Amino acid sequence: MYDLAICGGTAVLGDAVVRCDIGISGGRIAALAERIDEARQVIRADRLLVMPGGVDTHCHIEEPLPEGGYQEESWESASRSAFAGGTTSVVCHTTQEKGGTLLERHRSNRERASAGAMVDYGFHQIVADPSDAALAEIPALVADGIGSLKAFLTYDNVHLDDAAFLRVLQAAKRNGLMVHVHCENYDAINLAVSTLLANGCTAPKFHALSRPPVVEREATARAIALAELVGQPIHIFHVSCAEVAEEIARAQARGVAVKGETCPQYVTLTAEDMDRPGFEGAKFMCSPPPRGAADHAGVWSMLRRGVLDMITSDHCAFSFEGARGKAKNGRDAAFDVIPNGVPGLAARLPIVFSEGVSKGRIDLSTFVKLVAENPARIAGLYPRKGVIAVGSDADLVLWDAERPVTLTNALMQHAVDYTPYEGLEVVGWPAATIRRGEVVMQDDVVLARPGTGQWMPRGPQAR
Amino acid sequence: MYDLAICGGTAVLGDAVVRCDIGISGGRIAALAERIDEARQVIRADRLLVMPGGVDTHCHIEEPLPEGGYQEESWESASRSAFAGGTTSVVCHTTQEKGGTLLERHRSNRERASAGAMVDYGFHQIVADPSDAALAEIPALVADGIGSLKAFLTYDNVHLDDAAFLRVLQAAKRNGLMVHVHCENYDAINLAVSTLLANGCTAPKFHALSRPPVVEREATARAIALAELVGQPIHIFHVSCAEVAEEIARAQARGVAVKGETCPQYVTLTAEDMDRPGFEGAKFMCSPPPRGAADHAGVWSMLRRGVLDMITSDHCAFSFEGARGKAKNGRDAAFDVIPNGVPGLAARLPIVFSEGVSKGRIDLSTFVKLVAENPARIAGLYPRKGVIAVGSDADLVLWDAERPVTLTNALMQHAVDYTPYEGLEVVGWPAATIRRGEVVMQDDVVLARPGTGQWMPRGPQAR
Amino acid sequence: MYDLAICGGTAVLGDAVVRCDIGISGGRIAALAERIDEARQVIRADRLLVMPGGVDTHCHIEEPLPEGGYQEESWESASRSAFAGGTTSVVCHTTQEKGGTLLERHRSNRERASAGAMVDYGFHQIVADPSDAALAEIPALVADGIGSLKAFLTYDNVHLDDAAFLRVLQAAKRNGLMVHVHCENYDAINLAVSTLLANGCTAPKFHALSRPPVVEREATARAIALAELVGQPIHIFHVSCAEVAEEIARAQARGVAVKGETCPQYVTLTAEDMDRPGFEGAKFMCSPPPRGAADHAGVWSMLRRGVLDMITSDHCAFSFEGARGKAKNGRDAAFDVIPNGVPGLAARLPIVFSEGVSKGRIDLSTFVKLVAENPARIAGLYPRKGVIAVGSDADLVLWDAERPVTLTNALMQHAVDYTPYEGLEVVGWPAATIRRGEVVMQDDVVLARPGTGQWMPRGPQAR
Amino acid sequence: MYDLAICGGTAVLGDAVVRCDIGISGGRIAALAERIDEARQVIRADRLLVMPGGVDTHCHIEEPLPEGGYQEESWESASRSAFAGGTTSVVCHTTQEKGGTLLERHRSNRERASAGAMVDYGFHQIVADPSDAALAEIPALVADGIGSLKAFLTYDNVHLDDAAFLRVLQAAKRNGLMVHVHCENYDAINLAVSTLLANGCTAPKFHALSRPPVVEREATARAIALAELVGQPIHIFHVSCAEVAEEIARAQARGVAVKGETCPQYVTLTAEDMDRPGFEGAKFMCSPPPRGAADHAGVWSMLRRGVLDMITSDHCAFSFEGARGKAKNGRDAAFDVIPNGVPGLAARLPIVFSEGVSKGRIDLSTFVKLVAENPARIAGLYPRKGVIAVGSDADLVLWDAERPVTLTNALMQHAVDYTPYEGLEVVGWPAATIRRGEVVMQDDVVLARPGTGQWMPRGPQAR
Repeated sequence: MYDLAICGGTAVLGDAVVRCDIGISGGRIAALAERIDEARQVIRADRLLVMPGGVDTHCHIEEPLPEGGYQEESWESASRSAFAGGTTSVVCHTTQEKGGTLLERHRSNRERASAGAMVDYGFHQIVADPSDAALAEIPALVADGIGSLKAFLTYDNVHLDDAAFLRVLQAAKRNGLMVHVHCENYDAINLAVSTLLANGCTAPKFHALSRPPVVEREATARAIALAELVGQPIHIFHVSCAEVAEEIARAQARGVAVKGETCPQYVTLTAEDMDRPGFEGAKFMCSPPPRGAADHAGVWSMLRRGVLDMITSDHCAFSFEGARGKAKNGRDAAFDVIPNGVPGLAARLPIVFSEGVSKGRIDLSTFVKLVAENPARIAGLYPRKGVIAVGSDADLVLWDAERPVTLTNALMQHAVDYTPYEGLEVVGWPAATIRRGEVVMQDDVVLARPGTGQWMPRGPQAR
Repeated sequence: MYDLAICGGTAVLGDAVVRCDIGISGGRIAALAERIDEARQVIRADRLLVMPGGVDTHCHIEEPLPEGGYQEESWESASRSAFAGGTTSVVCHTTQEKGGTLLERHRSNRERASAGAMVDYGFHQIVADPSDAALAEIPALVADGIGSLKAFLTYDNVHLDDAAFLRVLQAAKRNGLMVHVHCENYDAINLAVSTLLANGCTAPKFHALSRPPVVEREATARAIALAELVGQPIHIFHVSCAEVAEEIARAQARGVAVKGETCPQYVTLTAEDMDRPGFEGAKFMCSPPPRGAADHAGVWSMLRRGVLDMITSDHCAFSFEGARGKAKNGRDAAFDVIPNGVPGLAARLPIVFSEGVSKGRIDLSTFVKLVAENPARIAGLYPRKGVIAVGSDADLVLWDAERPVTLTNALMQHAVDYTPYEGLEVVGWPAATIRRGEVVMQDDVVLARPGTGQWMPRGPQAR
Repeated sequence: MYDLAICGGTAVLGDAVVRCDIGISGGRIAALAERIDEARQVIRADRLLVMPGGVDTHCHIEEPLPEGGYQEESWESASRSAFAGGTTSVVCHTTQEKGGTLLERHRSNRERASAGAMVDYGFHQIVADPSDAALAEIPALVADGIGSLKAFLTYDNVHLDDAAFLRVLQAAKRNGLMVHVHCENYDAINLAVSTLLANGCTAPKFHALSRPPVVEREATARAIALAELVGQPIHIFHVSCAEVAEEIARAQARGVAVKGETCPQYVTLTAEDMDRPGFEGAKFMCSPPPRGAADHAGVWSMLRRGVLDMITSDHCAFSFEGARGKAKNGRDAAFDVIPNGVPGLAARLPIVFSEGVSKGRIDLSTFVKLVAENPARIAGLYPRKGVIAVGSDADLVLWDAERPVTLTNALMQHAVDYTPYEGLEVVGWPAATIRRGEVVMQDDVVLARPGTGQWMPRGPQAR
Repeated sequence: MYDLAICGGTAVLGDAVVRCDIGISGGRIAALAERIDEARQVIRADRLLVMPGGVDTHCHIEEPLPEGGYQEESWESASRSAFAGGTTSVVCHTTQEKGGTLLERHRSNRERASAGAMVDYGFHQIVADPSDAALAEIPALVADGIGSLKAFLTYDNVHLDDAAFLRVLQAAKRNGLMVHVHCENYDAINLAVSTLLANGCTAPKFHALSRPPVVEREATARAIALAELVGQPIHIFHVSCAEVAEEIARAQARGVAVKGETCPQYVTLTAEDMDRPGFEGAKFMCSPPPRGAADHAGVWSMLRRGVLDMITSDHCAFSFEGARGKAKNGRDAAFDVIPNGVPGLAARLPIVFSEGVSKGRIDLSTFVKLVAENPARIAGLYPRKGVIAVGSDADLVLWDAERPVTLTNALMQHAVDYTPYEGLEVVGWPAATIRRGEVVMQDDVVLARPGTGQWMPRGPQAR
């Protein structure tokens, strides 16, 4: 007698796409079978795909802001948005302050998440200042379930020079952690920004010019080389174009343990979007910036080759109008003081499904690998998350592959007042989201309660 | 109430490696579950891996010989060897004779297989003479379940020049078939052979010199280019070294639908083996020839990059002593009249597991993809074969990952009197083989009866 | 007391561009000096560049036609055109007929050239049928001064299959000759042509579709691989685009002795030109066909990288209206029976200078290398030809780098009634041409007499 | 009536190798002619090659030492060594101190060189601290004839971080200067050094381990990327192996203005040399360190491809025994405090000629390009230096191509007590050196007087 059975659907089981029923007990998948009759509750999934719930390993949620307070997207609103889009697990970030400690902030972050989250959650530990004291705290973090460090090679307050980045790589190696890297050359960007500003180029569109592909390519090649020197696996966050991915491909070909991700914005948005009238362009600002329309095909090619093997959202939501949002320094603010980031938690699966599967660029199994399995693997959550297998958490999304939807901000169910994907037509939409055997979204209505999300301690990462 | 349950094992389910029980009914997998109690028969698989039975899509079995009669390896002996090594499905070849028809030989081959086979079987149709008459028979072959054509770019009697190969590619495209290609440059080999013979170089070791990597590389690049021109997917058989695989990698990077396989001989044997005293070197002669020891690492690298995505046996067994064997033209025969080919049906899984998984070069999921899933996909047999999924045929191998074995000819259970892998130490060995829910090998004893193998009609191929 | 002095000019001496006078005696350069006073004749070259006369190692002149008679461009008319454009040496072709001998045709060609030529001349020996008898004649050709063989991988009547091409490569190696190759895949083109014709696609523009870049790339890669196998240097004729040149670049990087040339048509004409109304497109038909406008930049890039190191004309003149011309099979003839080739002897230097030097793509020294020095080197004519050095033949062109000219057919001074470059604006034009110390063109007036051109026996080739 | 004639020799004139006489007047080449009779002095060069005097654009001579005083190699001794080895021009370095100015040190360096030099000389300006004040001095340097800046990406006291390097690139662009770069990753080396020392690895051989190829490759890729961003040409100093040169090749292929040099030590010495007993290994320490013996072939390959286009000495002489020498911190000093650098001024031409020309790896013209023409071009000295052309300075080396010599320290004629090439057998040796028409070395005897060397103001650089 299972607690729940999902019956009649077509399940995506790794490379196999199979008609089968799924029996769930205790929040976990207990059986896959041709027919399951004995269950306390049965959900019919006829004509639907049954896939693992999305795993989004690159999110920013309710993070403390430098000016005090927290990001507008709270754990509760973010969870709602995640479920709305078929995602059931997220990995967010804890930021070390320069001179600061790791553990205290980590505990505080865990507490806030514990109170508000409905999705299951984990954290990457951002190391902004790899002092001996800070590195000494890492074993305690590992003991608490942290599995990864993140390094920024740009951004004031967090960027690491090579010496500091090497210390982070060594610390990760000693502690068996994955290292995720934001790759852009800090000094090159600063130079470009100051040159642009000195020439009166302040509009949002200059954001793209201030960080061209060569700036991202250089930092990517350098991060890989330093990781190669240390012998530490790394993962390149948010690769924006093929020119950058080619550095990863070359390293993979010579046997280096490096993987790469991209995000929906790099296959849908362009630098031209930042040139919309007035302040509108600010809605599309993120780093690295979206490139040209022709670059989208290059990113898909790198995904098909397996050079890039996952698509996360890099969800980082700033409202357009709010006091903590894009215009917090005024609608005439120069591009360099406009907050960077776009929301994408809810839009991720629909966009990747529609642009990928519906348009014939990838198959169903690849879709699941890109949005669930491979993120789970890199985060050390697999096979608990990211796969429909006996023993795994019963995190599922029931997917209507034929349903056409026009994206609107309301459908995103997040805390902010816009989506950069407003008006985008997609084919394919989540009919229901199931988290550990519990229906948490059905027909766009989120049903869970805050605080029901679970902390995900992490195991060994894929390399 | 299942017919059979495999309980207590660790199953390799695509990318997931999971403790679960497997319920089998009607020869197919009916359920995967944490615990299955109700079954007429239970096999305990504690401490064993449970993996899909091997799928070997590149075999030569009981083929008619040009001089009359058949290859020494019969369907019965080959099936025994396959089960001994954990393989449950094979795809062999039907050879068109120059000027000959396709269907007649196809029917005759099916009949012999039907009478003798214990493994499930299919055929690639070799087209040696793509006359209008021959090509006109292809739809009938497709109707009978044939899913692929094979082209040889070398070997007297079967090699195709570019015009003929283009006709084969076009015929495949019209009929929705995969094309497999043996890539070596015929004219270049002929030149090298005649030059060597003219200089008195007749020993087996000169086989390697007569077909160096450039000969294989050229033909591979050409086959890919012609397929690209026609827009027909192809699959490169038995890639011997990284230099050749690089041509495939380049084509994949530019979006061409080309895949590649390699064989156990290219990660274990070397050209030096053909230089053993006397006629002994003939045991290691196959085409393309094994390369240098340093090339083995290159092949593994190309497997890890996914440029090559399967390992088949190219099982082609000639006895060392027999009348139809290696010495059929005498033990002093020049290298060019010694039959080419080595047996490998039984050795394939143990070698790939041991050299791959036990030595840490690949993980378990990759092993299953290389020897079962990807061959099944390229052959249009997936997901019926090559995967443990609800609804798939219950073809399984129960594997003892820790067992050390020294390979001997007796363990191969084939019809011929030697194995090129004699004395090779492996770790990992099949404990039992299950074909469609029936135990056909246990503890090295094959239990099936001739004629129980099934014809496998083929569906759409992976591309 | 020199016979002639060229005074006041700026000479391009290899990599050095130097103000100096040039003293000439006995048809050869006797001195380069700051100032030369003592000469029987002085030509002032103030404000002019003084460069080596052009060396065009890829021409078709007064060749016998399959239907009897000779090409419209005679030795006399071709010489006039050459001098008009600043070229003083040409290497043409002697074609072996299938089953035919080499020597007889060679002698006949030499005789016609001897009677009519004003330019100095040599021949590549085309081998269309490498029978033992034909190859046995090669030493006599070498003794007479032949330094190269040419192989066609396409075209009825002359194309070689791999076996025959390998025999040519070996013969070249035995005799110390260079091998030039026309690289397109014969069978692939035949297939494309017959498919196009079967679909009623007969207009000139379909010529380009019948031989796309992949057809040229494949044959280039194959020619290189076979030459690599034999260990014989080769030179790829008329490379049309970067995709093809990349094959040469790869081979060069692994140390193979292969060089490549391109022609003016591949940096100025496009496949679209063949789509002009009516029969007009026939004027632009040559093989390989011109590619897209975007390919021109790729060719320049390969020239700057040194992957391609010369620009010849592949001058092959068919009149537009004449009985032996483009329309010889009627103005409605299908593209496959329209003669292939465009005239370019006179246009070559002006186009390369203007598109190259005047537009800032290359410097003066590179210009001289592309049109004179490197062709002379590959042909074994260097340093007798292709360079301004003491002891070299006094073949010079005095060049007005600033002069704007609109190309017209009249300026070409060839025998045919059109130029594909009609209307092209160039900057830079020859003011005078000097052949072995004799002024043979001044102010567009050709001054030499037929029969004054000299046979150029050839020495070792650059590799 | 010429001042001097060099008669009967075989001159290397760019790509042409020609028998001709050379007439010299006023220190410059006035004529190249078949025969020159009228000269006040005649030097017979029968059976000798006549080539441009060597141009060595990467030397360290009589530089101020951090601890006070100057390098052991004075302008006088260095000039003697240069002439002994056929070199007539050098470009050395002026080092800015952190916080220091440029001009004062420049003037002081010019004064010392003016007093002692016999070779003609110039300087690269090392920028160690690109403050506004320092950069403001650059126009004055340019006015005085400086044509290049040098940036170190490693070494305490001089290394630049990315921000500072970008400032140098921009300053070079504003002033039309070339930028030369020493490419190794500072932080990575520091980490490796401290790790090695912490593990007690202090012997000279650990120098190589402290700066492996990846450290040089990374910095090379980064320097190129930042130059690409700014749009400023750069030149990579002392490339040690093919892996590094490949970064240059890739950039050249995408059109970036980057060139590379290597040095004799990278085709003759190995990391194993640093493992000789006792302190002996210190003799072979330089940065980047010599790599493996197998890397020599890779460097030659990159030279032949033109990816690297010059060979300089990076002459940086420290005595083995002296107070300012290798052992200045004692013979037990850890590798990180042993001065880096090897002498090579005199050995450069003989080694490159012998390993290159005599061993058949390059031809004579390439030799001249590598050691004279291309260094002169990159330094803006061409065609005044580096070529035998009318109007050029009469800097010549008369070379006996057949003469076998065993290198000894005495033959080097430098100020220090060892050569790393002791015992190396070469074929080819300078018979005489001529500087601006004056014989300054004959039969190993240097004849010039200190202070006769001339300052070389620099013009536009090759790009």
